[in-house]
Amino acid sequence: MSDSDPSLSGTLLKETALAPWRSSLARALHRNRSRPYSRYFQLATVTAAGHPANRTVVFRDFLPHTNTLTVVTDQRSAKVADIAAHPWAEACWYFTHTREQFRLAGPIAIVGATNLNAELQRARQTSWEALSDNARQQFYWPHPAQPRDPEADFSPRDAGEIPPALFCLVLLAPDRVDHLELRGDPQTRTLYDHQSDGTWQVKTVNP
Amino acid sequence: MSDSDPSLSGTLLKETALAPWRSSLARALHRNRSRPYSRYFQLATVTAAGHPANRTVVFRDFLPHTNTLTVVTDQRSAKVADIAAHPWAEACWYFTHTREQFRLAGPIAIVGATNLNAELQRARQTSWEALSDNARQQFYWPHPAQPRDPEADFSPRDAGEIPPALFCLVLLAPDRVDHLELRGDPQTRTLYDHQSDGTWQVKTVNP
Repeated sequence: MSDSDPSLSGTLLKETALAPWRSSLARALHRNRSRPYSRYFQLATVTAAGHPANRTVVFRDFLPHTNTLTVVTDQRSAKVADIAAHPWAEACWYFTHTREQFRLAGPIAIVGATNLNAELQRARQTSWEALSDNARQQFYWPHPAQPRDPEADFSPRDAGEIPPALFCLVLLAPDRVDHLELRGDPQTRTLYDHQSDGTWQVKTVNP
Repeated sequence: MSDSDPSLSGTLLKETALAPWRSSLARALHRNRSRPYSRYFQLATVTAAGHPANRTVVFRDFLPHTNTLTVVTDQRSAKVADIAAHPWAEACWYFTHTREQFRLAGPIAIVGATNLNAELQRARQTSWEALSDNARQQFYWPHPAQPRDPEADFSPRDAGEIPPALFCLVLLAPDRVDHLELRGDPQTRTLYDHQSDGTWQVKTVNP
């Protein structure tokens, strides 16, 4: 998948009503807000070799007027290559205070510096502006996962308002959401499936 | 992969010295022990269709004298089919108190009721015995992810010392471990790679 695949950009950007799982997720974010790590989730992708890969990422926001989740990454990160090979992901988001899990699976795309879609470039710019100075620093660090050079320069620098070329936005547009609430006896599990007509099928299932 | 694949059983059971990442993981478990969810991690697999799947599981223990992690599952769970199709996984384990992440990737196997390896059956039995009464109940519940029948029987039952046929042990034998410590400026990242001679290569890399 090129990072300017027009059909996928269309899916990710499509203005849409709030999906029915959005209110449950918003409630979980609110009720767990005192724990900063409640904004972290684990993002699973498939490598070019067909192996699963899994890492913790920080939820940034939804793309405006869509149900698309955004995170940010460095172009040099292995997840960029994974997504190029297999543009599909499953996020697993566990909230420790309310003891509930959301699994969100769907197409995923990278928006890098060379993406030609103006609306996606605006979203990339907005995400950069929203980053803390501290979070911006890592985009100026040496190549991730390469051997550490004791002389390497990790000193803070003045990151401007223009995103560096390595800064990428990652877009995940869930197609299926699996919400499990461990509290309650038995537990409550709800599946949300995106239908081809754009609506969501909601089912209560066995935990 | 059959659940009694002899070569994989050999790998998973092989008595071995403690891998060098074990002390860091043991320290993280100890330092985060006041938070019960520190024993949960996210397990990524690949479905038969080639999509990533990701869910929270509970770390049970290491298989004795090995570096193999164990979790338990229901034979009817989707992860059993995933692992049959692609016997490889990556666990992502984030410790919220010490702010560190372990990614553990390697071959994964299911040990079900029909597995013929005596040592693995003993491990399965031991895992069942170590489960709380509450955790045992779910193996008697109706089929996971099937539509919830309001009349379905979720009432507690007296689970005995014999594991039910649906009870499976899951074994993950990490081949590569990626340990990231967010505390510190810059962060510290260590890669552990299992070599063909059984030793581990340890490298400090850029975060």
